[in-house]
Amino acid sequence: MSAPRKAALVGGGVIGGGWAARLLLSGVDVALFDPDPQAERKIGEILKNARHAFDRMLPEGRPAEGTLTITGDLAKAVAGADFIQESAPERVELKQSIFAQLDELVGPEVLIASSTSGIKPTDLQAKMKHPERLVVGHPFNPVYLLPLVEIVGGEKTALEAIERARALYSAIGMKPLVVRKEIEAFIADRLMEALWREALWLVKDGIATTEEVDDAIRYGCGLRWAQMGTFQVFQIAGGEAGMRHFMAQFGPCLKWPWTKLMDVPEMTDELVETIAEQCDDQAGGLGFRELERIRDENLVDVMKALEANNWGAGAVLKSYRASLQEKD
Amino acid sequence: MSAPRKAALVGGGVIGGGWAARLLLSGVDVALFDPDPQAERKIGEILKNARHAFDRMLPEGRPAEGTLTITGDLAKAVAGADFIQESAPERVELKQSIFAQLDELVGPEVLIASSTSGIKPTDLQAKMKHPERLVVGHPFNPVYLLPLVEIVGGEKTALEAIERARALYSAIGMKPLVVRKEIEAFIADRLMEALWREALWLVKDGIATTEEVDDAIRYGCGLRWAQMGTFQVFQIAGGEAGMRHFMAQFGPCLKWPWTKLMDVPEMTDELVETIAEQCDDQAGGLGFRELERIRDENLVDVMKALEANNWGAGAVLKSYRASLQEKD
Repeated sequence: MSAPRKAALVGGGVIGGGWAARLLLSGVDVALFDPDPQAERKIGEILKNARHAFDRMLPEGRPAEGTLTITGDLAKAVAGADFIQESAPERVELKQSIFAQLDELVGPEVLIASSTSGIKPTDLQAKMKHPERLVVGHPFNPVYLLPLVEIVGGEKTALEAIERARALYSAIGMKPLVVRKEIEAFIADRLMEALWREALWLVKDGIATTEEVDDAIRYGCGLRWAQMGTFQVFQIAGGEAGMRHFMAQFGPCLKWPWTKLMDVPEMTDELVETIAEQCDDQAGGLGFRELERIRDENLVDVMKALEANNWGAGAVLKSYRASLQEKD
Repeated sequence: MSAPRKAALVGGGVIGGGWAARLLLSGVDVALFDPDPQAERKIGEILKNARHAFDRMLPEGRPAEGTLTITGDLAKAVAGADFIQESAPERVELKQSIFAQLDELVGPEVLIASSTSGIKPTDLQAKMKHPERLVVGHPFNPVYLLPLVEIVGGEKTALEAIERARALYSAIGMKPLVVRKEIEAFIADRLMEALWREALWLVKDGIATTEEVDDAIRYGCGLRWAQMGTFQVFQIAGGEAGMRHFMAQFGPCLKWPWTKLMDVPEMTDELVETIAEQCDDQAGGLGFRELERIRDENLVDVMKALEANNWGAGAVLKSYRASLQEKD
């Protein structure tokens, strides 16, 4: 299976809308189920940003867009779909009930993926008649630009479903990462949350503002993480002696009081307000949509910079562009 | 104070050598103290990489290089210097003894900065006769490319020393971040270590290889961190409702079992070997110097991509280039 013929999306929020944009701009027809009367406006705004970003990313021209249908009728949305991506709120009972309905509405050959950020697929598929076609396909915001998608199978997931998901996501320009063992929050969100928790402590303790935390990332380690992650960067930092030397040197630091590792900060109203206010200051008068556009333009340009070196996210973009050229 | 007339460097390892390269390529004369007979060869290799990176970063031409002297005689190295940057191994007694010697060798008007990753400046300056001119100036590898430098004062540091350090680092193309409160490991290393600790667990528990951890970063969140850090990214992820909404939605996740936050993995020989071997596999036959060059080229190109948008690290590069043009 390469790209789906028709994709059905359950849920049209930030993530579901991002899936709609990525699929449509890759030429896939999309039917989106969302009972929200604002769904059409919201998807329209996401699509506007996504088109702008794709024009920047693919100066040789975008593929012809797929057609979009938005409906409040789940049966209509999934009729004729060969792939369903669920992006409903993060409540396991809600998702289980959606998958039970999908089991009734579509044949067992239809691949179903969940965008959950952290719920185990074994829990999601617990009440399904055909659980073998259920995978987690966890994307990252903005879904239409970031290549990463974590694929996770549950106890009852067929290997074939994992492989179909891998091929399908690759065909729409993504970098599938198949997670070897089922674990809550998978890989990327665990890393992000570890960093986020420490960042919350720094703000709560008045060590840094949200802007200073962000600056500590984007002027330093963030520039390395964008291309190499953490291990490869540390391997180089080890100098000629490599990773063993680096770990001998910095391993002991893990025992020093360098992080507030024993506690989770209490998310009090006061902390929420402090952070929200600092983030507003940091935005310097830029609205959400403006920030979003800046983020997207930067993402595109960073990926294009890496593309010229055929490295990391740039290598994914390069092969996606090559596959689009082949289709022409 | 803008750029120093003559900088003395104590220690010529990965960090000290990186300082040498940044200063020399910004036109500053450098005297480096290092008793290692290999120092000249090692600095030469770092300089070779740095020149290559600067040629890529400054296509309009690099400034004339400063002159480099390498000596095993500390008194010779610091004679006539108006700025000293210490990058010795991370042992507080060693650093204290270096600062005590420097107190004897140079006048109290000479600014002294330590590259320590985590030792509090109050501890570093404890035995100095003129502690008021001691600051932490913590850079990030590769020092000749990454703009971030954390400036931290101790209890006895004069505000004027902080301001001099800020102006000095800015003049050599860096982004100084003055840390408001003294704390071990400051800001950036706390964030990096939180992520690194979780990454070590993922490898130890067999959830992911080092390469998969790195992929989870560089194809996803790393591309966002390079430009916006963590808070601003999450603010946008909150959609139209912003940061308050994001925290209401994801705050509770901090209580879920999403990270192994209560423990530090034991750095056993077995874990060190596992990680070192996986890192070697991940390098795919590329040697340390090749990886270093790829990293540097990517860093330059990512910063140049952001420069075109006058954003983040790119804005720092832009103003550095403008300041070089003014000097011409």
